[in-house]
Amino acid sequence: MNLNPLLVGTAAPPIPAVRAWSARYRGREPLIDLSQAVPGYPPPPELLAHIAAAGGSLDAAAYGAITGDATLRSRYAEEVSELYGGSVSLDEIAITAGCNQAFVVTAMTLATAGDTVILPLPWYFNHKMILDTLGVEAVALPCRAEAGFIPSVEAAATLIGPRTRAIVLVSPNNPTGAIYPPATIAAFAELCADRGIALVIDETYRDFNAADRRPHDLIAETDWQETLVQLYSFSKAYCIPGHRVGAILAGQRFIAELTKVLDCVQICPPRAPQTALTWAIGALSGWRGENRRTIAARAQSFRSVVSSIAGWSVASIGAYFAYVRHPFPGRPAAAVAEWLAAERGVVSLPASYFGPRQEDFLRLAYANVDVAAINALPERLAVGASG
Amino acid sequence: MNLNPLLVGTAAPPIPAVRAWSARYRGREPLIDLSQAVPGYPPPPELLAHIAAAGGSLDAAAYGAITGDATLRSRYAEEVSELYGGSVSLDEIAITAGCNQAFVVTAMTLATAGDTVILPLPWYFNHKMILDTLGVEAVALPCRAEAGFIPSVEAAATLIGPRTRAIVLVSPNNPTGAIYPPATIAAFAELCADRGIALVIDETYRDFNAADRRPHDLIAETDWQETLVQLYSFSKAYCIPGHRVGAILAGQRFIAELTKVLDCVQICPPRAPQTALTWAIGALSGWRGENRRTIAARAQSFRSVVSSIAGWSVASIGAYFAYVRHPFPGRPAAAVAEWLAAERGVVSLPASYFGPRQEDFLRLAYANVDVAAINALPERLAVGASG
Repeated sequence: MNLNPLLVGTAAPPIPAVRAWSARYRGREPLIDLSQAVPGYPPPPELLAHIAAAGGSLDAAAYGAITGDATLRSRYAEEVSELYGGSVSLDEIAITAGCNQAFVVTAMTLATAGDTVILPLPWYFNHKMILDTLGVEAVALPCRAEAGFIPSVEAAATLIGPRTRAIVLVSPNNPTGAIYPPATIAAFAELCADRGIALVIDETYRDFNAADRRPHDLIAETDWQETLVQLYSFSKAYCIPGHRVGAILAGQRFIAELTKVLDCVQICPPRAPQTALTWAIGALSGWRGENRRTIAARAQSFRSVVSSIAGWSVASIGAYFAYVRHPFPGRPAAAVAEWLAAERGVVSLPASYFGPRQEDFLRLAYANVDVAAINALPERLAVGASG
Repeated sequence: MNLNPLLVGTAAPPIPAVRAWSARYRGREPLIDLSQAVPGYPPPPELLAHIAAAGGSLDAAAYGAITGDATLRSRYAEEVSELYGGSVSLDEIAITAGCNQAFVVTAMTLATAGDTVILPLPWYFNHKMILDTLGVEAVALPCRAEAGFIPSVEAAATLIGPRTRAIVLVSPNNPTGAIYPPATIAAFAELCADRGIALVIDETYRDFNAADRRPHDLIAETDWQETLVQLYSFSKAYCIPGHRVGAILAGQRFIAELTKVLDCVQICPPRAPQTALTWAIGALSGWRGENRRTIAARAQSFRSVVSSIAGWSVASIGAYFAYVRHPFPGRPAAAVAEWLAAERGVVSLPASYFGPRQEDFLRLAYANVDVAAINALPERLAVGASG
């Protein structure tokens, strides 16, 4: 049989390749895994108890609503209304089986083969992979290290063509960790509204943003329904990625069309974690706040520790991720990451997975590990004979 | 913002529309819901206990393998090897968040916009919806009631063009219930192998097939890896659709490309039900056998009861579904189904949802209800003044 040539031409998922490198590590010190974003603390036992209780129920075994249970949508609508200072209704929310799926179904709702979508570069690899697979051209909007990897709205404006359907922002950013200023997000929203295209903001790492103001003002201050599509990950925020729950916030016209895609892709999202999360939104807001502060402290440790290592520098750090310049200019990022994983037992993602011209960087998910592991980095990252 | 025009042109999901009709029913007798396929018996308490136990574990809260947990893939590979008389390895299995998703990711692995896929008519509406959304043309292969809705391989051969990527069979069929003879499936496989296209067989309702031989001989007798993609639904077989678990069986070249799509669409399937199903495959095979016999008995009751009602006839009946000719020729199937739901409290799906020229039929998921409900049908379906 012939397979979809666009898919055959798409890059393979990076995480398994990186796992293979780390499997070769033979050092005495424990592996420090900073590759796939997996919080270095467990989900609270009460949350697991709620998932278990729902999992044992007859109700969770049955089909639910295509866009998710009304109880969870309603509770989440309340939370985002409060957080963003607006008034969001449950009909403007859809629950998905994870935030990656939220992006896939959003892309299918907005674009068809031959359309284009603008992605700041470096981009999140799954965004690029699914656009490639769908035949939707990902147009790169290069971000500069000197600008803190914040994309330029002026540069974006020059990239919009007749078949552009959306600009995708990821804030806090994956891979750079950069938290986009509200004014930047507002300028992008204005550009998108003017040009009649969607602004998709992936806010997977929102709960790890330690800023003391709301992430942006679009919901409070604009007619966002015709422009904004916001993505969120319960999996990440509540440390339960194995249960697969994400969310989309958008206007009702978008949600109505999205519902057709969701009926095909999921019929309904997994029910048991929805029930548990309806409880968790309020009950675990304190726990999420503690994690936010813990991770902010790790960011400070990471920045000062890694900046002190000869040859290494932190190009960007924010909520969850650091984008680090390695000490081997001219050497492919994958070769550096392979050496680091197999020889030094520190697992990172080479930034080449996040787009072209990223060979000087590695993505380190510093939030995966505690301060003790961060303090071990100078020895592990030291450039010696084996480098 | 502009939305994907192919999606905007796609039909809306039918189940919610049908629910709205039944919400208007004011009769004294209970509603008989034969619309969405939902087995009329609960999942076994031991299975729910296993899901609850896994749901409360730290392991299930973490990411798993992209194509599903190796333990479940291995156990399922053993089961299909035994059932189909072949030797299937775990690397030829991928677990998905439900069988609808299995079809979506299969379509994305095989075809891109502008390609074509052949669907026997009547088709399963979600198959048509997602192909429309992807810009993949669904080419109808009309099935005749006189032929028991078994598709003709000769007719299919005439529909294959240079951009045809697959023929999709659903057996046991949704909506007609027809169980395709192994010889028919073999002939389709030979045609597909000759023409270098995929044969996708959706076997969601396999566990409800009461035949005393294996469903087909492709795995036992052919080099199936370059032709066959087989889909299966744990959700349906084990009566836990709210937990969303399906499976794909295909050759390793297909699975390798599929893995890229799955990394974007799901990252991993929901973990807790995977753990429980690894146990259930062996432990609940007796329970599944009992359900098969129960549903076969319901089929017999349904056929004899509905055949006795003036004006109504059973055009086709098999595993789970009956395709019934209503007594109002010339009247749209949706109007008949609306009357039946709102006035008589019997909820069906109008066959117009399953493709063009199906206005004379309704799909009744007879397996949803017990024999007592089936015996109530003559009164509820009687054509009186209100018809």
